Amino acid sequence: MTDQDRIYMAEAIQLANKGLYTTEPNPRVGCVIVKDGKVIGRGWHQKAGEAHAEVNALVEAGAEAEGATAYVTLEPCSHFGRTPPCANALIEAKVKRVVAAMQDPNPLVAGNGFQMLRDAGIIVDSGLLQTEAEALNPGFIKRMKTGFPLVRVKLAMSVDGRTAMASGESQWITGSEARQDVQRLRARSSAIITGSGTVNLDDPSLTVRAEELGLDNADLIAERQPLRVVVDSEGDITSESKLLGLAGKIVVAMASNKGVEHDLRHSDQISFKSFAADNGRVDLKLLLSWLAAQGCNEVLIEAGATLAGAFVYQQLVDELWVYMAPTLMGSRARPLLNLPLDRMSQQIPMKLVESRAVGNDIRFIYQLEAE
Amino acid sequence: MTDQDRIYMAEAIQLANKGLYTTEPNPRVGCVIVKDGKVIGRGWHQKAGEAHAEVNALVEAGAEAEGATAYVTLEPCSHFGRTPPCANALIEAKVKRVVAAMQDPNPLVAGNGFQMLRDAGIIVDSGLLQTEAEALNPGFIKRMKTGFPLVRVKLAMSVDGRTAMASGESQWITGSEARQDVQRLRARSSAIITGSGTVNLDDPSLTVRAEELGLDNADLIAERQPLRVVVDSEGDITSESKLLGLAGKIVVAMASNKGVEHDLRHSDQISFKSFAADNGRVDLKLLLSWLAAQGCNEVLIEAGATLAGAFVYQQLVDELWVYMAPTLMGSRARPLLNLPLDRMSQQIPMKLVESRAVGNDIRFIYQLEAE
Repeated sequence: MTDQDRIYMAEAIQLANKGLYTTEPNPRVGCVIVKDGKVIGRGWHQKAGEAHAEVNALVEAGAEAEGATAYVTLEPCSHFGRTPPCANALIEAKVKRVVAAMQDPNPLVAGNGFQMLRDAGIIVDSGLLQTEAEALNPGFIKRMKTGFPLVRVKLAMSVDGRTAMASGESQWITGSEARQDVQRLRARSSAIITGSGTVNLDDPSLTVRAEELGLDNADLIAERQPLRVVVDSEGDITSESKLLGLAGKIVVAMASNKGVEHDLRHSDQISFKSFAADNGRVDLKLLLSWLAAQGCNEVLIEAGATLAGAFVYQQLVDELWVYMAPTLMGSRARPLLNLPLDRMSQQIPMKLVESRAVGNDIRFIYQLEAE
Repeated sequence: MTDQDRIYMAEAIQLANKGLYTTEPNPRVGCVIVKDGKVIGRGWHQKAGEAHAEVNALVEAGAEAEGATAYVTLEPCSHFGRTPPCANALIEAKVKRVVAAMQDPNPLVAGNGFQMLRDAGIIVDSGLLQTEAEALNPGFIKRMKTGFPLVRVKLAMSVDGRTAMASGESQWITGSEARQDVQRLRARSSAIITGSGTVNLDDPSLTVRAEELGLDNADLIAERQPLRVVVDSEGDITSESKLLGLAGKIVVAMASNKGVEHDLRHSDQISFKSFAADNGRVDLKLLLSWLAAQGCNEVLIEAGATLAGAFVYQQLVDELWVYMAPTLMGSRARPLLNLPLDRMSQQIPMKLVESRAVGNDIRFIYQLEAE
């Protein structure tokens, strides 16, 4: 493939990225259609149920698409979902060549879209800027391949690794820029998991707030609130919790079907699900696979040291997002994660993949080995 | 001052930096002598008792120095120390102009050197690249101005802010590159402070090891071992400790003159000093001012959470050097610093002044408000 191919694919990736906060549960996809060295169509997928990237680009290209090359960040779909297959649309438009950045990550369907195109006589190339294209959809890809969502734990800490004083006091460790960054992290997530302890103690909203995103299409983004999941093994949540009254769906994940006769059971917005583990706690792995089955690609954990620590300890976490503030909170303060480790050989090694200043704080992204 | 002046001063600063590991207790100073747009002499101060930067540069310039301009990173000295005053040497060489980056930081003598030069008819300019020149000698400047050394605390930690497992096991949290970096930090320090608890538990050397420095002049550097100071309020140190048998002077800082009849008292290398505080512990502030009086510019604390925490809590620390390894050590492990803080309002705010990758670890330098 040529430098020119690379330039068009880079533009398709930029287009795909416009859907970062809105395509869920679908992947972010971009498409550029080129004929005689000129871009004649650009498209990206904005929202589930609406047109896919290829179709949007073909609409712009119109009859000119005949004989053109389509650059698309993901293998065109070959199945009927909420919209007809994009492979068909490309065939009908009589494009000459399709360049894709990557195959469909679902191993059961990968290559079917390409095959449809080839069967129709279209030249197909794949793998151009694949790493960059994969970075658009880490959660979608993991879900398609494994049946689990990508799991991130977000933590705000002091340099000495503390997230709250012993009393629970924690507002605010990090600055406003870091909190805006967390709003964007929430906005790209399909679901946010917290614990009933955090809900009862801090009474958080865990919503995406348009005015705090600092993004052009903030109102559109905030229309889709991530699913909020409260892990509540012992039925501790009270109906006074602020997050229960806010827009968006809520799942209370319990360790048993029986017992709690809650006045919250009558809300349309709130559902109760049981994910019982042998130890009487919520089975976190079961919860994650259920979330994946609901179409959750990227799941964010915003919880206290106990629940976040349990996810890490059970090797269910892909990424740790740490916002480190330039402060010391002292040795009486709460730990970053409750992790019962005794020997250096039990350490949990991670890989630093990104480090950047966010206001006066630093944001680190570490990768862990998730199951 | 012109761009050309700036270029020559930048070279003088580079020359001064060659003395980073060896000039102690003197400041690092560099000098460039320029005539008719040509550098005719370069000098830097290498070692206490040897020639100062100006004299070294004048020797190279010879008779050509007459009518030249001397660029020097610090006001030339006006007093007889172990060598005659550099101001005299510049006057005798008949230079026309002296450009200095900064005044002598000792408020009692600042400007005297300049005055001597001006009285001899030499043009004097000061303040060029002052910030850069100050960065050469943060400890010397602080000692001259306040009677205290610059105090650094070095810590190696996991992302969750832990420095050792509960058992004390800690080798190795950081990688070999970070440990080499610590060797260089030691090498530039006048003294290293640790506690008897750390000595008895970890049995560290706390020496500068030429082969681990990775520097050209490593052998020369390691000739001067930093003074090692063991804070030993309760007379816990045993004569078996490894560091007592290694080259270099050792001070055991005690809380009392009486009591301990130690077999170590007979060593030439080891001295015992009392710095008693009201609470029966070593008075850390007194210890630091005594170290400054001994000519210590930069003091490094390599101690456990209790002693390092006490220095921080008592506001005696200027810089925290944190090496953060990409790992989690868990909530049972030892804290970064023992700091008894209960409310967010008691947090110890810091200022991040540097962040850089060192191997797989990250090194942060934070500034604290020291007294």
